[in-house]
Amino acid sequence: VLAGVGTASANDEVKELSGNPANWAMQTGDYANTRYSKLDQITAENAKDLQPVWTFSTGVLRGHEGGPLVIGDTMYLHTPFPNRVYAMDLNEEGRIKWMYEPKQDPAVIPVMCCDTVNRGLAYGDGKIFLHQADTTLVALDVENGDVVWSVKNGDPGKGESGTAAPMVYNDKVFLGISGGEFGVHGSITAYNIADGSQAWRGYSTGPDDMTLMDPEKTTHLGQAVGVDSGTATWEGDQWKIGGGTTWGWFSFDPEENLIYYGTGNPSTWNPVQRPGDNRWSMTIFARDIDTGMTKWVYQMTPHDEWDFDGVNEMILVDQEIDGEDRKTLVHFDRNGFGYTMDRVSGELLVAEKFDPAVNWATHVDMKTGRPQVVAEYSTGQNGEDVNTTNVCPAALGSKDQQPAAYSPDTNLFYVPTNHVCMDYEPFEVEYTAGQPYVGATLSMFPAGKVTEDGTDNLGNFIAWDAAKGEIKWSIPEAFSVWSGALATAGNVVFYGTLEGHLKAINAETGEELYRFKTPSSIIGNVTTWEHDGKQYIGVLSGLGGWAGIGFAAGLSGDTDGLGAVGAYKSLSSYTALGGVLTVFAL
Amino acid sequence: VLAGVGTASANDEVKELSGNPANWAMQTGDYANTRYSKLDQITAENAKDLQPVWTFSTGVLRGHEGGPLVIGDTMYLHTPFPNRVYAMDLNEEGRIKWMYEPKQDPAVIPVMCCDTVNRGLAYGDGKIFLHQADTTLVALDVENGDVVWSVKNGDPGKGESGTAAPMVYNDKVFLGISGGEFGVHGSITAYNIADGSQAWRGYSTGPDDMTLMDPEKTTHLGQAVGVDSGTATWEGDQWKIGGGTTWGWFSFDPEENLIYYGTGNPSTWNPVQRPGDNRWSMTIFARDIDTGMTKWVYQMTPHDEWDFDGVNEMILVDQEIDGEDRKTLVHFDRNGFGYTMDRVSGELLVAEKFDPAVNWATHVDMKTGRPQVVAEYSTGQNGEDVNTTNVCPAALGSKDQQPAAYSPDTNLFYVPTNHVCMDYEPFEVEYTAGQPYVGATLSMFPAGKVTEDGTDNLGNFIAWDAAKGEIKWSIPEAFSVWSGALATAGNVVFYGTLEGHLKAINAETGEELYRFKTPSSIIGNVTTWEHDGKQYIGVLSGLGGWAGIGFAAGLSGDTDGLGAVGAYKSLSSYTALGGVLTVFAL
Ligand SMILES: O=C(O)c1cc(C(=O)O)c2c(n1)C(=O)C(=O)c1cc(C(=O)O)[nH]c1-2
Ligand SMILES: O=C(O)c1cc(C(=O)O)c2c(n1)C(=O)C(=O)c1cc(C(=O)O)[nH]c1-2
Repeated sequence: VLAGVGTASANDEVKELSGNPANWAMQTGDYANTRYSKLDQITAENAKDLQPVWTFSTGVLRGHEGGPLVIGDTMYLHTPFPNRVYAMDLNEEGRIKWMYEPKQDPAVIPVMCCDTVNRGLAYGDGKIFLHQADTTLVALDVENGDVVWSVKNGDPGKGESGTAAPMVYNDKVFLGISGGEFGVHGSITAYNIADGSQAWRGYSTGPDDMTLMDPEKTTHLGQAVGVDSGTATWEGDQWKIGGGTTWGWFSFDPEENLIYYGTGNPSTWNPVQRPGDNRWSMTIFARDIDTGMTKWVYQMTPHDEWDFDGVNEMILVDQEIDGEDRKTLVHFDRNGFGYTMDRVSGELLVAEKFDPAVNWATHVDMKTGRPQVVAEYSTGQNGEDVNTTNVCPAALGSKDQQPAAYSPDTNLFYVPTNHVCMDYEPFEVEYTAGQPYVGATLSMFPAGKVTEDGTDNLGNFIAWDAAKGEIKWSIPEAFSVWSGALATAGNVVFYGTLEGHLKAINAETGEELYRFKTPSSIIGNVTTWEHDGKQYIGVLSGLGGWAGIGFAAGLSGDTDGLGAVGAYKSLSSYTALGGVLTVFAL
Repeated sequence: VLAGVGTASANDEVKELSGNPANWAMQTGDYANTRYSKLDQITAENAKDLQPVWTFSTGVLRGHEGGPLVIGDTMYLHTPFPNRVYAMDLNEEGRIKWMYEPKQDPAVIPVMCCDTVNRGLAYGDGKIFLHQADTTLVALDVENGDVVWSVKNGDPGKGESGTAAPMVYNDKVFLGISGGEFGVHGSITAYNIADGSQAWRGYSTGPDDMTLMDPEKTTHLGQAVGVDSGTATWEGDQWKIGGGTTWGWFSFDPEENLIYYGTGNPSTWNPVQRPGDNRWSMTIFARDIDTGMTKWVYQMTPHDEWDFDGVNEMILVDQEIDGEDRKTLVHFDRNGFGYTMDRVSGELLVAEKFDPAVNWATHVDMKTGRPQVVAEYSTGQNGEDVNTTNVCPAALGSKDQQPAAYSPDTNLFYVPTNHVCMDYEPFEVEYTAGQPYVGATLSMFPAGKVTEDGTDNLGNFIAWDAAKGEIKWSIPEAFSVWSGALATAGNVVFYGTLEGHLKAINAETGEELYRFKTPSSIIGNVTTWEHDGKQYIGVLSGLGGWAGIGFAAGLSGDTDGLGAVGAYKSLSSYTALGGVLTVFAL
């Protein structure tokens, strides 16, 4: 195990900034992705007295994901396409210091699968990093928004796009890529923070020199992966258009010097067209931060048949498992299983359903790590042009991009979830660069239709015990909870709803303490900071993302928007588009 | 003088609804345009405890003028183009009961001079009336938003558009028309509420059968106007493309059975091209509600040389003038004079500057009613292709569309004002139907540049004594106050700023009691209502209108947007586009 190296400066500064809870210096709150704040002015007792203190319209419609960064007196706020960046003065209710709006070819919009979202900015080395929709990574001078450098990470002409937040660690900026619905060849790239030159790129599929794997040393559940494991489970050259994109979050373990993240679905959505496990799509990766070399992998959903992208965040917190202290990674996968792994060795410790409705697999075999697929729900076994019905969860999973939070005070994970099932009919599709490479027709509906328990909620906000793999409590929500959670030392957790409510919840009991109806659906992630000695809560509203794609893109057929439009139609009773930041305080 | 007749039903219902202060049943609050509410729960003492209670994004960018109607448990909210209408349930934080969005040809957008604004809906006879941008007047079933009838009031192909709020009185819906910058022939039309058939139309210019004038009985400051007064002061057929549009507010006096409103600028903006007084542009009209016949007129700015449209609201409240109780009409004109008139006879009682910076005229001659123009600021006398500099006010006047309020408790008028001057250079222009017919290049700047008093504020919020013609107090605002005011029985007046603040002010003293930064600039009008025994305050934000045209339409040259872009550029430090309703309560 390597010790953290890296050219001190950038890293040390980011570490120091994010170590001070007055700031919210990275999207994820910390390198471990806990989204936990030590701020404790807002408590379970006084949260009922919260009120909005100022608000800001971004000037952009469509889905607003991610959240603001706060560093000292300044807030840095992004928007969906056209990807504006605002630097705002917290001393003057967000007075705008500078604004940057890139010129981008709008031709990228139709190759963005799930709305023109952007999950936020990163800070490091005196620069603000923006990942544009068109895959350009741009470094802006934090003082004035001037472009310091910029680099193209991909090619929208081939269906490549950018939605994921960059992250800074040591002297590098880490960047994912989107396009699993366009046969994009997924990769993660490390850029040198000083000038944007490429440090390394690791692909999700391909030969070892592309995946950066050592056939002997890289392991899958303790076993060496062997030579060219990234091509071996694909037919011919299919791995080249095999997806495994990287549009989620990154976590960093400074002690192990590892970066963790997951890869997305194999392309196409028609499993019949791509026999084999399709490694390493749907896989948790642990890579060396400096070199990109893969230490271990774990494929959660071999040979995906449901679009269960494995990109959801990896939360790096230690847990006591069977009486033993383990350095663990906790991950709530689209496929409906909550995984607890040893993040050093990649050993699988716990894999349990975090939504009881999950039916596509009975359980995960703890030896092989393979989910035990229920034949009835296997879209591949049922075959092309057959509608496999009542699969739970739906393609957007028991959880999608919306990140969970963890509180060390309760040792619980707070997970925004979906409670949605689907019908899924695969069909033959041909690959054309830059064109959708989907090959399935979907429709989605409340899980209650399948569980027949008389419910019709599309989401729950749950508290999860990752050592036991158990739900502690669960709050039903009419719609999927598409917003990221925040946990705080005040014993309060926060999340937003698609109706537009910001909610404050007692972290122990799940009791609702406060709610406020913000202007539009919340699919942003709740953040907190301190300014002039006072704790603030901030959240972006702005209907969109996959759940809101019908509204964002103006679609109305039930199976439009990759199947999501029908299920969320009734959001029209609550909300309309519009990006607004709402800031709360006592 | 006729007594109010009219087929009881619609009228009685609207009167009853608007008489109950729990409702806000017409845009103007009441027929007299006082924008005063008897609600008094929110007081000068407790206004500091106001807070937002729910918010709603309209899903539309660009300028949001007007405000919601509230009738019983339901709110009716409109948007700029595409002119959505939302019916929202106040029992559930504005849950949407129904939404209506007309299909309109976007070709109307470029013929809207000053953004795609809309000043709101009207209610009557079980119908919600929407004046679309394309001039269509549509009647929607209040229960479900179904179209009951619709009628085209004008033709966007000729530069005609719709922004003004319709108003209902008796069995009629009254409607104005926009397009003074396109040579539109201004008129006001009364439609029968039952089926949308036309009851009468009165033009601003033209022969007597078009203006609905009686040469003997229609008076101007007590004198009969004579035959065809609407053509006599125009060269040839110029009156046909002579403007005098009617995009402001209407007032009704039930006792006199008169409707009052003002007409806009004569077209073109180049005065050299249209010698004469250009009657009846820039004129206050008093017409019989039932027949449209003109009782009296008063032309405030004969032969306009500055674009001082006379459309601002007429506030019908009685005042004691020189010890005598008079039935008065109070009007704050674009030209910078605050007029108090006898609304029965049309006698001019008071005409004083409500912004001391006004310099284009020294005073109004009280006998002739003519402003005494200062030659230096006469763009006509200076001539074509000569830049007349430092004229105060600018073309957008000392006050534009933003309506004032009146409180009977203080007997003061609360006036949102502009404090802006201009350079104005007329040039020769040819008329082409549907094309801009402007003929002047303008730039605008803070009045302090001319008054040389070291100030640079672009606006003031003033309290005005209409009997004396005096400012009681004045609150300087960095930007023009483009929002409409509200006065309440709680001794609190409200208005919004272009930075986005809703402000509550002590009605007596002008002291600020409360402010909240809403998501975007406020150019909407503040309204109030009561629901379940609780008083609420509501206001639309949404940067745009003429002051915000640079942002709304994406213009950046200082003289773009008919000269307004330069003066308001620095709004980019405060705000961006986005339509949001914010609802406040204690
Ligand atoms: O495979 C991909 O490359 C890719 C990209 C994205 C994206 O970049 O937003 C999403 C997805 N897949 C996806 O499967 C998905 O459920 C999804 C939801 C969202 C969203 O922002 O709401 N994005 C994406
Ligand atoms: O002459 C016209 O027909 C006409 C129409 C309008 C309008 O309909 O909005 C405005 C004006 N003129 C105008 O002169 C003006 O200052 C103005 C401001 C605004 C606004 O909404 O901010 N509209 C208009």
